Amino acid sequence: MPELNIVNPTPRRLFGPGPTNVAPEIVDAMRASLLGHLDSEFHAILDEVSSMLGTVYQRHSGVSLALSATGTGGLEAGLAALVEPGETAIVGTAGFFGDRIVELARRRGADVVEVRAAPGRHVPTEALVDALGRNPQAKVVAVVHADTSTGVRNPVEELGAELRDTDAMLLVDCVTSLGGIEVDADDWGIDYAFSCTQKCLGAPPGMSPITLSDRARQRIRDCRREPPFYFDLELLERYWVDRPAAYHHTLPVLAVYALHAALRSVLGEGLPQRWERHAAAGAHLRSALHERGFELLAEPGYQLPQLTAIRVPEGIDGRAVQARLLERHGIEIGAPLNGAGPAIWRIGLMGVNATIECAETVVAALDDVLDDERVRVAA
Amino acid sequence: MPELNIVNPTPRRLFGPGPTNVAPEIVDAMRASLLGHLDSEFHAILDEVSSMLGTVYQRHSGVSLALSATGTGGLEAGLAALVEPGETAIVGTAGFFGDRIVELARRRGADVVEVRAAPGRHVPTEALVDALGRNPQAKVVAVVHADTSTGVRNPVEELGAELRDTDAMLLVDCVTSLGGIEVDADDWGIDYAFSCTQKCLGAPPGMSPITLSDRARQRIRDCRREPPFYFDLELLERYWVDRPAAYHHTLPVLAVYALHAALRSVLGEGLPQRWERHAAAGAHLRSALHERGFELLAEPGYQLPQLTAIRVPEGIDGRAVQARLLERHGIEIGAPLNGAGPAIWRIGLMGVNATIECAETVVAALDDVLDDERVRVAA
Repeated sequence: MPELNIVNPTPRRLFGPGPTNVAPEIVDAMRASLLGHLDSEFHAILDEVSSMLGTVYQRHSGVSLALSATGTGGLEAGLAALVEPGETAIVGTAGFFGDRIVELARRRGADVVEVRAAPGRHVPTEALVDALGRNPQAKVVAVVHADTSTGVRNPVEELGAELRDTDAMLLVDCVTSLGGIEVDADDWGIDYAFSCTQKCLGAPPGMSPITLSDRARQRIRDCRREPPFYFDLELLERYWVDRPAAYHHTLPVLAVYALHAALRSVLGEGLPQRWERHAAAGAHLRSALHERGFELLAEPGYQLPQLTAIRVPEGIDGRAVQARLLERHGIEIGAPLNGAGPAIWRIGLMGVNATIECAETVVAALDDVLDDERVRVAA
Repeated sequence: MPELNIVNPTPRRLFGPGPTNVAPEIVDAMRASLLGHLDSEFHAILDEVSSMLGTVYQRHSGVSLALSATGTGGLEAGLAALVEPGETAIVGTAGFFGDRIVELARRRGADVVEVRAAPGRHVPTEALVDALGRNPQAKVVAVVHADTSTGVRNPVEELGAELRDTDAMLLVDCVTSLGGIEVDADDWGIDYAFSCTQKCLGAPPGMSPITLSDRARQRIRDCRREPPFYFDLELLERYWVDRPAAYHHTLPVLAVYALHAALRSVLGEGLPQRWERHAAAGAHLRSALHERGFELLAEPGYQLPQLTAIRVPEGIDGRAVQARLLERHGIEIGAPLNGAGPAIWRIGLMGVNATIECAETVVAALDDVLDDERVRVAA
């Protein structure tokens, strides 16, 4: 094998669905001295991460921690914790990530009741409540808060209010929402939520912050069918919160340092201020896109600020536009995931990129590239 | 919540069972520009990582890649791939990590046949072969190559030779062996091996390098009971090797950069040279320990160079010694995992720490601390 060079990637402005760019001080946090995962100094760092995650999730009961996996691992862990094989799960879906919940719940052996809406629409709360009325045995109602595949926000606060007096647990995918728009785990009655580090929290990818309600923790203790060991939330809570003598696995110590730094930054800015910044950047982008006659995928009123899906205009080769944005401007935007769904671009303004300047940069780059006849579909 | 400080851990010399210290250039690799996980430049980096892992595992067929999880995730994925519920798995165990295979195989629903040896002993090859003779329906024979809980090497090369003409797959935990002692996946007939990044490969913790034989890949394609999605090796191979339109999850991009840098360093040094360096450091440590009358846990002939378990001498408080090593010398060594098994210390000399200087440093520190009467058990 020839000697390989050190990785030297071209700088990118990551204006797609994530990962987003990471602030230098958050990358630098990973240069701190490596501690062992059983060192009491590391335990103290975990305590702080857990506490900050509780604040960011607005969870003042229950427990919050971060899995040593990405967001998809957070979904896997939540389903394994709350649904046993043969039990019913109601899943609202209007896009790729709702479909992913369906797929993973099926793999867990759940009897899945799908509540579907078209891509670009939200999943109506009443449809989910109706499904629960028809399937009162359901253990879980699951929904994506912010679907990265469509840019749509599902009204979790409404759903939580409707489920408050039922026995069904509310499981929410907060991968793209946490740190970018409001999430209120306690007030909305979220039993289990999972997120990622690389979107609106602004850390590198690699961990999945989760939060559990007290009744979800009780359900886990009562569970008869053990989950995969790596995603066993009871054992993970023992390591993260109880201690000592609770070795479970070796945590990605430097990724924990980065998450700690990112959470400090989120809380230093203030949650409302951070949501407002994401809202302002998204509004600026939308307004510029409307001016140019672009059509957005999301229905009005449910558009996320941090992720905007635009229909690729007639006669334009969407992939060619992305390639030229990357080459000429060093800008990444997203395509439809695995080629599924309508022809769209997905523009993300998350974390440090949630600014008016970034909104203007991406629109100017789009203007430039669309001006080039090589992105037209051959007639 | 009060404003928290940035993490500022005390520097440690990590002479325990891992993580080990990471060379500065490997930490610095994580400062390269963050790429998206679907960027073709990132795909090229994955190709290089996959190729280098094949070289390090000495796998010239099959496929090698790294899971976005720690070593425990690598075990979870391997068992889910190769054993279906109700099938038989033969597991050799003589310590914590063999017991962990037993536990995870049981969770997968396997019928587990345990082949036990006492802590400090290796698992005899003939006992495993006998178990397979009595259980010819077994789909998997699993063993730990280098058990971090005892410092014992199991003779995987012998076992592989015995299994060569059987249908049973050989699954091997290479968490503590890869990069420190020889692993030859092809020659030894290993169907599935998993490792970690934070021990003899010398990267930060966070990924699990795995390797699959071609017949293991075929078994996975034929598998009826789907594994957990996060650990679905067929989908992961599609993302790592095939492409495009194979989004599975967002990889921990910076951890991949670090792994790339660590593998470059391993191959730049040369595998035989690296094994020799670990052997020399381990031999130096053993000799100094013998001089001082310490008793090693491992039986002669099966002692790992990279991890040495010492019995805590009569009248000494093992925990107090560890605490003083940490306080006075900034040195971490390991205790029995979760308090299980005999009273031992575990000294690791792995990656950059596999040097004569480190061996001398840890022994001198032990001398100093044991001189202090405060580490004696109260009479």
